[in-house]
Amino acid sequence: MIKIDAGKAVLSANDRQALQNYQTWQASNLTAINVMASPGAGKTSVITGLLKSLPPGLSNGVIEGDVASSIDTDKLVALGFRATQINTNGACHLDANMIASAIKALPVAGPGFIFIENIGNLICPVDFHLGESIRLVIASVPEGDDKPVKYPGIFAAGDAIVLNKTDLLGHVDFRMDFFQAGVRAVNPNARIFTTSCRNNEGIQAVADWLMTKRD
Amino acid sequence: MIKIDAGKAVLSANDRQALQNYQTWQASNLTAINVMASPGAGKTSVITGLLKSLPPGLSNGVIEGDVASSIDTDKLVALGFRATQINTNGACHLDANMIASAIKALPVAGPGFIFIENIGNLICPVDFHLGESIRLVIASVPEGDDKPVKYPGIFAAGDAIVLNKTDLLGHVDFRMDFFQAGVRAVNPNARIFTTSCRNNEGIQAVADWLMTKRD
Repeated sequence: MIKIDAGKAVLSANDRQALQNYQTWQASNLTAINVMASPGAGKTSVITGLLKSLPPGLSNGVIEGDVASSIDTDKLVALGFRATQINTNGACHLDANMIASAIKALPVAGPGFIFIENIGNLICPVDFHLGESIRLVIASVPEGDDKPVKYPGIFAAGDAIVLNKTDLLGHVDFRMDFFQAGVRAVNPNARIFTTSCRNNEGIQAVADWLMTKRD
Repeated sequence: MIKIDAGKAVLSANDRQALQNYQTWQASNLTAINVMASPGAGKTSVITGLLKSLPPGLSNGVIEGDVASSIDTDKLVALGFRATQINTNGACHLDANMIASAIKALPVAGPGFIFIENIGNLICPVDFHLGESIRLVIASVPEGDDKPVKYPGIFAAGDAIVLNKTDLLGHVDFRMDFFQAGVRAVNPNARIFTTSCRNNEGIQAVADWLMTKRD
């Protein structure tokens, strides 16, 4: 279900385009997931793991957002996944218009998921609806357990919080209870998952949850 | 030396305030350092390490920027350092006006350094001069070796690039030559340092370099 408040008297230009993106995806039986995180939290690795863990028979796609470069799209395409790149050339978040262009560049028939990898940033992306039905916020163990306290807005916005790079738990100072309490303080209802893409742990549980959240 | 192009016909309001901040610090024999990095790269740990490694006889201060919370300022004050907090309540970067208020809240006589810990973000902070003389960009090993390629603007802006958390080099995939080539491609002249705050390695070299860069 899309999160835009369509009951508002006036939708912003971005929200109007987001609603249109949502309707385009819905017509193709596609559910879009806005993946938000810091730089280097493992967005592409989590998305890759999910694409491998989702059941066969789905027709999925990835929209990759980066300030510069097509490194992540190149990786995904090399693995045989359908992906298209958006370069924002300095902008700190994706917006619904960029996504509309990407939808044209990446026609996917569905049924399935569209993963949207947002710009690495814990602040700006949260204010721009893209038409997604699900918001996945990824944090990573080496970033520290205080991220939900320092960046409450994005942790409040997630339908699920994925704590990635748990393989590093023994090598850095990280209090799991402090992290979880920080999430709970701003978002009592979000699912919290723990994953290690390096050890391929925890990804299947996220994929299974996504399957329950399809439109 | 401040980096604002004072020869421009019209300075922006932010640049005018930044120039004033610079002059205020210069009158007190203070050199300001704008510390920029992703969330969780180790900004506060590097600053703490530098404060401990700088020679005695200096009078230093820290201006802490965060979207929310005063966790980092509390840590620094508990260690006996002078620090003041700016909460941007959602804004993704500090600006010169916020710094002007912080200067009033944290009177430091000098001679010494003012460390400004910017908001955790590899995009927005680079466009806003604060009046600093030195720009320190911190990256961390677990973020990955592709950050300079993906976020070229901020790596181009650094007088020095500090690659932190080198203690994790054996635990993640990280090609040092790819990282360094990424930095060199956009910033041939920056000093590149490697540090581990956990093992207290490499910090003294950064402190020594800062001492050569005082105004």
